[in-house]
Amino acid sequence: MKFCSVCGSADIALTVPDGDQRARYVCPSCGTVHYSNPKIVCGVVPVFEDKVMLCRRGIEPRFGKWTLPAGFMENEETVEEGAQRELYEEAVSTVSLGLLLTVISVPHISQVHMMYLGTMTEPKFAVTPESTEIKLFTEAEIPWGELAFRTVKTALEHFFECRRTGEFTLKRSRID
Amino acid sequence: MKFCSVCGSADIALTVPDGDQRARYVCPSCGTVHYSNPKIVCGVVPVFEDKVMLCRRGIEPRFGKWTLPAGFMENEETVEEGAQRELYEEAVSTVSLGLLLTVISVPHISQVHMMYLGTMTEPKFAVTPESTEIKLFTEAEIPWGELAFRTVKTALEHFFECRRTGEFTLKRSRID
Repeated sequence: MKFCSVCGSADIALTVPDGDQRARYVCPSCGTVHYSNPKIVCGVVPVFEDKVMLCRRGIEPRFGKWTLPAGFMENEETVEEGAQRELYEEAVSTVSLGLLLTVISVPHISQVHMMYLGTMTEPKFAVTPESTEIKLFTEAEIPWGELAFRTVKTALEHFFECRRTGEFTLKRSRID
Repeated sequence: MKFCSVCGSADIALTVPDGDQRARYVCPSCGTVHYSNPKIVCGVVPVFEDKVMLCRRGIEPRFGKWTLPAGFMENEETVEEGAQRELYEEAVSTVSLGLLLTVISVPHISQVHMMYLGTMTEPKFAVTPESTEIKLFTEAEIPWGELAFRTVKTALEHFFECRRTGEFTLKRSRID
């Protein structure tokens, strides 16, 4: 941030506002404090029978790697709506949304990844500009070495562990 | 947003970028797309024996009303660290953090409220600039009519319901 987005001043500076504990971008001209906060990445573990649907990324970052459908939650939606929207945008697919499976904080990039269990009633999906290939994988077939993100690996490992035990729980963790 | 925070241009406009589905503030001079996303409010239901600790708000909004200690998650922390930081900032108190009790989307203000169960080992707390009064309440004593936010009411109702049944679960809901 080099200019105040409210008044255009170039005198913006990182300072700790009165009564605050953290440095913020504060505009000395109009007084606006510009806060920056973590973003939510929401997505789905889409399950059809004994298989999980993964998408091969058609965009950066991690172009060509496999991922669960997920992306940044948008303003004016719920986390659940965001997860289902991302599934539709990336794979033209829908699910019956189930439990929240993971809440994973990724503090070094100020993100929180939240993945839901989703049950597909039929194996319906299609490639999109965001996904060059979409496929259903059994646990044995998951391309563990070619997953796009560590939060995807954690969510998949947790899902298969829950399925083995028959007890579906929320996994909370952090990735550094 | 009236000026680009990167280059200072006043020509910033709400437009849908290529390949996007939503209008964003886009700078025609330097090309920066300025995204805005929901914020996480994280907090604690601090429990000591059969009582819950509430804080009387010493700041706006809802000055004078009772709340659970909670606030905006900050960059470079986990949701759990944020919840414990807010508890300390508002009430100079600490807990052993337990289950995630609620994930409540509030889409009209683009927030997600996440409240954790917290067990106090001793009834230690103190007023702060943010809290003019801090008190432990049994369920019967909770000032239901004087709570600051609906997400606080939902979290308290859910906590007491869990305590009654002996089964602590995650409640997901939305408030419109």
